[in-house]
Amino acid sequence: MSQLYPQSVQTLIDEFNRLPGIGARSAERLAFHVLASSKDEAMRLALAIRDVKKVIKACSRCFNAAEGELCHICSDHKRERGIMCIVELPRDIIAIEKCGGFSGVYHVLQGVLDPVAGVGPGQLRVAELFSRLESDEPITEIILALNPTTEGDATASYLIDEIRKSFTDINVTKLARGLASGTDLESTAPSSLQYAIQGRQGV
Amino acid sequence: MSQLYPQSVQTLIDEFNRLPGIGARSAERLAFHVLASSKDEAMRLALAIRDVKKVIKACSRCFNAAEGELCHICSDHKRERGIMCIVELPRDIIAIEKCGGFSGVYHVLQGVLDPVAGVGPGQLRVAELFSRLESDEPITEIILALNPTTEGDATASYLIDEIRKSFTDINVTKLARGLASGTDLESTAPSSLQYAIQGRQGV
Repeated sequence: MSQLYPQSVQTLIDEFNRLPGIGARSAERLAFHVLASSKDEAMRLALAIRDVKKVIKACSRCFNAAEGELCHICSDHKRERGIMCIVELPRDIIAIEKCGGFSGVYHVLQGVLDPVAGVGPGQLRVAELFSRLESDEPITEIILALNPTTEGDATASYLIDEIRKSFTDINVTKLARGLASGTDLESTAPSSLQYAIQGRQGV
Repeated sequence: MSQLYPQSVQTLIDEFNRLPGIGARSAERLAFHVLASSKDEAMRLALAIRDVKKVIKACSRCFNAAEGELCHICSDHKRERGIMCIVELPRDIIAIEKCGGFSGVYHVLQGVLDPVAGVGPGQLRVAELFSRLESDEPITEIILALNPTTEGDATASYLIDEIRKSFTDINVTKLARGLASGTDLESTAPSSLQYAIQGRQGV
């Protein structure tokens, strides 16, 4: 069907189609929106993409997305530097910041261990984590906030072992597992229900 | 919440959020995808947007999207030039081309009459339509393929009147209205059902 569109329109549809969650129909609709919008309006999106790729680097301390040397959390003197939350990706920081329950600092692994995809500790920011623990700050608690997936769990187990080898005085915790708010028992996966029972709390 | 993101990331989220069908959550997800992807990959989308705005113009004959002076349909000598289909926007041409039932040429009005929004015949490609009918090609049939909306219907009525004033030998038709394939009577809007009854056909 490629002759349906002029080449430049087809290319734009293909590029939109590559984005996560954008199917063929949505990609067409977005391309037609770009076609119909003013040049200024369309170029604002193109320039925003270019600027992000030009300006955003990994924070030199925690590897969060940053416009300068340090991200806005590492530059914030009001954050509690003794509590470190370990996450997979910068977007996990946003999720935690939005819930408003954490005032410490972060360390972004930039992925999870995934032997099948060839991702070992050397491909993640693990060495940088341990050099922070050794020299940077006196950390009293590490919260492992990896995603509740097989890879996330394996990465957490690996980090727990490594941290306990060298830093016996750091309190290592994991995010609680259990029932998600707004769901019901009937539609909860058996493994989540198992976590909810194992982690049951006195009232 | 704007301090959650570096400014350039917030700008990119805002720009994605402006696109049709992209809500706040999707805009965040797309921005994080751009952040996580390689610079080359991200820039392919930025450049595709720029290229479309640079290269695509309105076809000088039918006002479809075109990379050259004429669109690929007006340049195609195999199309039947005696049958003209009038549509609102270039995307309507794609929809009709995909169904494969039409081999004539098009005329894109670039909108519909909308007095509330201040769109009269002068804001559409109506004058260009009549100059095509007068000089360009011997048209035997005009198919009105405007959207089945209040504005589309009003625009069709206006064009029917104008065409009949000057071109009594052109056969003017409209797309059939009735039941949409794959739906059921119960969920069909009363007005569509009315069209389906009025347009009932002998079997």
